[in-house]
Amino acid sequence: MVFIKNRQDNVIADYIEGFYRTNKYVKKLEHQPILVQKEQDSQLVPIISGGGSGHEPAHVGFVGKGMLTAAVYGEIFTPPTAEEVLAAIRAVHKGKGVFLIVKNFEADLETFGQAIAQARQEGIAVKYIVSHDDISVDTKDNFRMRHRGLAGTILLHKVLGAAAQAGYDLVDLEQLGLSLATEIATIGFATKSASLPDVSQPLFDLADGEISYGIGIHGEEGYRTVTYESSEQLANEIVNKLKLKFRWKEGEEYVLLVNNLGNLSELEQGIFLNDLYQFLELEGLKLPYIKTGKFMTSLDMEGISVTLCRVKDPVWLDFLQAPTEAAAW
Amino acid sequence: MVFIKNRQDNVIADYIEGFYRTNKYVKKLEHQPILVQKEQDSQLVPIISGGGSGHEPAHVGFVGKGMLTAAVYGEIFTPPTAEEVLAAIRAVHKGKGVFLIVKNFEADLETFGQAIAQARQEGIAVKYIVSHDDISVDTKDNFRMRHRGLAGTILLHKVLGAAAQAGYDLVDLEQLGLSLATEIATIGFATKSASLPDVSQPLFDLADGEISYGIGIHGEEGYRTVTYESSEQLANEIVNKLKLKFRWKEGEEYVLLVNNLGNLSELEQGIFLNDLYQFLELEGLKLPYIKTGKFMTSLDMEGISVTLCRVKDPVWLDFLQAPTEAAAW
Repeated sequence: MVFIKNRQDNVIADYIEGFYRTNKYVKKLEHQPILVQKEQDSQLVPIISGGGSGHEPAHVGFVGKGMLTAAVYGEIFTPPTAEEVLAAIRAVHKGKGVFLIVKNFEADLETFGQAIAQARQEGIAVKYIVSHDDISVDTKDNFRMRHRGLAGTILLHKVLGAAAQAGYDLVDLEQLGLSLATEIATIGFATKSASLPDVSQPLFDLADGEISYGIGIHGEEGYRTVTYESSEQLANEIVNKLKLKFRWKEGEEYVLLVNNLGNLSELEQGIFLNDLYQFLELEGLKLPYIKTGKFMTSLDMEGISVTLCRVKDPVWLDFLQAPTEAAAW
Repeated sequence: MVFIKNRQDNVIADYIEGFYRTNKYVKKLEHQPILVQKEQDSQLVPIISGGGSGHEPAHVGFVGKGMLTAAVYGEIFTPPTAEEVLAAIRAVHKGKGVFLIVKNFEADLETFGQAIAQARQEGIAVKYIVSHDDISVDTKDNFRMRHRGLAGTILLHKVLGAAAQAGYDLVDLEQLGLSLATEIATIGFATKSASLPDVSQPLFDLADGEISYGIGIHGEEGYRTVTYESSEQLANEIVNKLKLKFRWKEGEEYVLLVNNLGNLSELEQGIFLNDLYQFLELEGLKLPYIKTGKFMTSLDMEGISVTLCRVKDPVWLDFLQAPTEAAAW
C-alpha cells in the first residue's frame, strides 16, 4: 500500500474522484459522500447501498442502471453518518419510495436505521433489507454465528437492482430481498490480513504460510488459524462450512460468487476455484451461474470469500443475468 | 503466492481447469493447451492469440464470442510451442482463414512464426498482427525502444474480435490490425516485482517505497528506479512518456486502458487513475472510452500499466463497445 502509506488526507476522496470522472454513468453529489446514477429513471424504485470504504469496488462500483441508484460511503471501515444516508435517500426519492440494502454491522445498522426513521418522518416510504450472509463463528463468544454482511451483499445489489429496473415496487422488493437474503451464505479465508493506510501494519498477525478461516472484511481475525497445506484443503473446509449451513440435496441449484478479498493473484484465485468447483460438483450441486472477481475487498488483504445462494426462484437467475451499467459487476 | 509456492506441478493446468469448468462459453481441447469457444460460428474468421502463462486473465479470459475464438498458452513466461500454435490454427480453421494476434517477444515470434508457416504450407490462409505497444526503453541497449507486446494487446483482441464478429474477412482484419497496432502505446510502473512460483523471490529488487518505471510483464526491470513520492508524480512521468510518443494535439480522442499488473489494491489503482485522468484532461485529450481492471498481469507484481490508443477511426469505438462473452473484458 505504498500509494497511501502515511497519507490520511483525501485517500477516499481521491479514489472516488477517479471513479466518477472515468465513469460516464455516475455522478457525485456536491459536498456529500454519495454517488448516483447520472440519469435516474423516476418511474423506478431507487436502490441505495453503502457503508464504510476500504471495500472497493464496493459500493460505488455497483452504481448504474440495473443495480444501485446510489451508493453512500464513509471513511475506511466506518459507515457514513445518518445525515449522509438521509441525504442519499432524499436525493433519489422521486415518489416511488426508496429501498436500502444495509450490511449487518452494528455501526451500519445504527446510522442507516436513524436515517430510515428520519426519512419516514419526512413522509418518504422507505423499506430495507439487512444482508447477513456471513456464516463464520465467533470463537470468543460461544461460537455464535457472526452473520455479518459480506460479499453476498453484492448478489442482493444485483438481483434487487434488476428487479427494480423491471418495475418491482417497494413491497415486492422487500419480499424478494427477504426471500433472497436468507438463502445467501458467505465464508472466506485469508493468507494475509489487511493493513490500514495510516498504520501500514496488518490488523492481525499471520505468519508466512498461515491461513485464517472465517475472516471479516474489516481486518477481523477468523475462527481458526492453520498452516497452509494445499488449495484443496482450503476448498474442503469452505465447502464443509457451507454444507452445514445449507444441508443441501443432490441436484439443488446454487449461484456461486468467488470474491477476491484484495490482493490475491489471478493465478491463485483460479487454482482455488478449480478445487472449490470440483468439491461442489462432487456434492452433486448444479451451478447455473458462476461469477468471480473483486466485488467486496478488504483493502490489501490476500484472501478469498466464497458465497453460495440457493436458487429458490428461477427469476433470480434472470435478474443476475440482466444487463447492468455498473462498472464492477 | 502461498498457493503455488514450491509447487511446480500443474499450477497452470489447475488454473485452466478452474477457468473452463466455470465458464460456459469455452472448452478445452483434449491433450492441448488450447481453449476455444464452445460454439464457433464457422462463417466468421477465427481469431487466435496466446503466449506464456503468468499473465492471467490473459489470454484465456478473452476467449468468447466477440473476442478470441481460441487462446493457446505455454508454461509461465514461456510461449506455447509451434506445434501447439499449429494445433490451435487447425482446430479453428473452417475455411475462412485464421487470424493471429502475437505479442512482440523473440520467443513468441519464433514459435508463432513457425506455426504460421506450417499452416500456410497446409493450405490454410493465415494472417497475423504483432502487438508492440510497449514504449519503454532499454537503458542497456542505447535506449532503444523495447516495443514488447503488453496490455495494449487486449485492445487488439477486442477490436479485431468484434470486427470478425461483424463479418470482416481476413484481409480487412489485417488492415484493421495494422492500422490499430501502430496507434497503441503502453507504459507502466511497479512497486514490487513479480515472483516465480518455484523461487518465490522477486525477479528484480525493489526496496520498500521504491518504484520502477517501464517494467515488462515477465519480471523485466524498468528503465529507472526512483523513491516513491506521490501518485501524482507517477502519473506525470507516465503521461510525459505517452506525450512524447503521440505528440498529441488538444481535442484528439484516445481510448484509455488502465491495467492492474497483479496485486495492487483497488484503492491504490483508483487513486492513481484520478491523477492520471486529471493530467490527460489538462492536456486537452478526449477520452470517449475508458476501461480499468486486470487484463494482462505479471503474476503477483504490484503495479499498473497505462495504455492509450489514438482513435483514428470511430468504428474502433463501436467495436470496443460491442458485446462479448469473454469473461475478462
